[in-house]
Amino acid sequence: MIRIITISREFGSGGRTIGKEVAEKLGIPCYDKDLIEKIAEETGYAKEFIADESEYAPNSNSLAYMFIGRGLDGLSNADKIWIAQKKVIEELAEKQACVVVGRCADYVLRERKDVLNVFVYADKKLRAERIVKQYGESAVEPEKRLADKDKKRKLNYKYFTEQEWGKRQNYHLSIDSGFLGIEKAVALIVDAVGGAVENE
Amino acid sequence: MIRIITISREFGSGGRTIGKEVAEKLGIPCYDKDLIEKIAEETGYAKEFIADESEYAPNSNSLAYMFIGRGLDGLSNADKIWIAQKKVIEELAEKQACVVVGRCADYVLRERKDVLNVFVYADKKLRAERIVKQYGESAVEPEKRLADKDKKRKLNYKYFTEQEWGKRQNYHLSIDSGFLGIEKAVALIVDAVGGAVENE
Repeated sequence: MIRIITISREFGSGGRTIGKEVAEKLGIPCYDKDLIEKIAEETGYAKEFIADESEYAPNSNSLAYMFIGRGLDGLSNADKIWIAQKKVIEELAEKQACVVVGRCADYVLRERKDVLNVFVYADKKLRAERIVKQYGESAVEPEKRLADKDKKRKLNYKYFTEQEWGKRQNYHLSIDSGFLGIEKAVALIVDAVGGAVENE
Repeated sequence: MIRIITISREFGSGGRTIGKEVAEKLGIPCYDKDLIEKIAEETGYAKEFIADESEYAPNSNSLAYMFIGRGLDGLSNADKIWIAQKKVIEELAEKQACVVVGRCADYVLRERKDVLNVFVYADKKLRAERIVKQYGESAVEPEKRLADKDKKRKLNYKYFTEQEWGKRQNYHLSIDSGFLGIEKAVALIVDAVGGAVENE
């Protein structure tokens, strides 16, 4: 019986919107930005810092500075965020049925049997249009913004999970939201869950 | 509007069964073994020969013999089968709504806008159990049979399409039929099609 749905997604594929709508249809909470607040409480870091940094891979060149801030415990900021994030997600999953968007939740919850892992992706052209509509224009070309964001997600995922982000084998369902549309993607996930989820 | 569904599948994942049931629910034909008969008519080769050989990649070592049979036109048997297979699938798709299982149909029909490409896969353990139940015991261990068959499909697909078989990006929907079950996989594909398909 599926109680938890994790949604991993390419930037601009509508994965976050899909997650919210799935949660609404199932009558369960969707954790996305809320996770950041919980991680902030755990670590004492500012929310903005977590939002910015936790999608980076600590071994990425541009982030060498993260190692400078290493504490007496030998942990980098990224490591501390990872540990808090893991704890927050594990506790949430234990407590209640929910949707979790991003944050390697598929990997964190891999030992559980009640988790449906979904990956959402779409054609680059459609994603570029979507991020301009969603987040506005920027000096950086949308194709470049997509590539940068997905690369960060990929590196972060690889660093902490040693698995490949977006690889079909790591998910139970992969949906092309560009071809099928957001609405159909939501319906497919709800169907895959196959009925009400229990929320004790 | 989706008119054609192609199903690519790991050996033992139940993809063929899923294809048949999807076709039944949509009231359209499912082409699988029937394709072989049509290819036989086109090429003049025996059905058994096509069934055996058309899942091999012509550059696979064990198949060097395929090159011995090269005709005056310079085409190997595998090439001739590929050309006939392509023609048969293209003509079928033009003529009617249908489900096509295997045979690189996703690639053959890539220019069409009315095709839903699905990949079906499952955990190795579940697939091993399934092939023993479905095809009986054999001197070769089920895990080895799975690996051999999938390797052939992979090589054949790569040789003729220059794409990677089973890579999420080549499909609109990838379904773990081990986790979700055959019945749910069928329902998801029917939902993805989103209603009746037109069959002029």
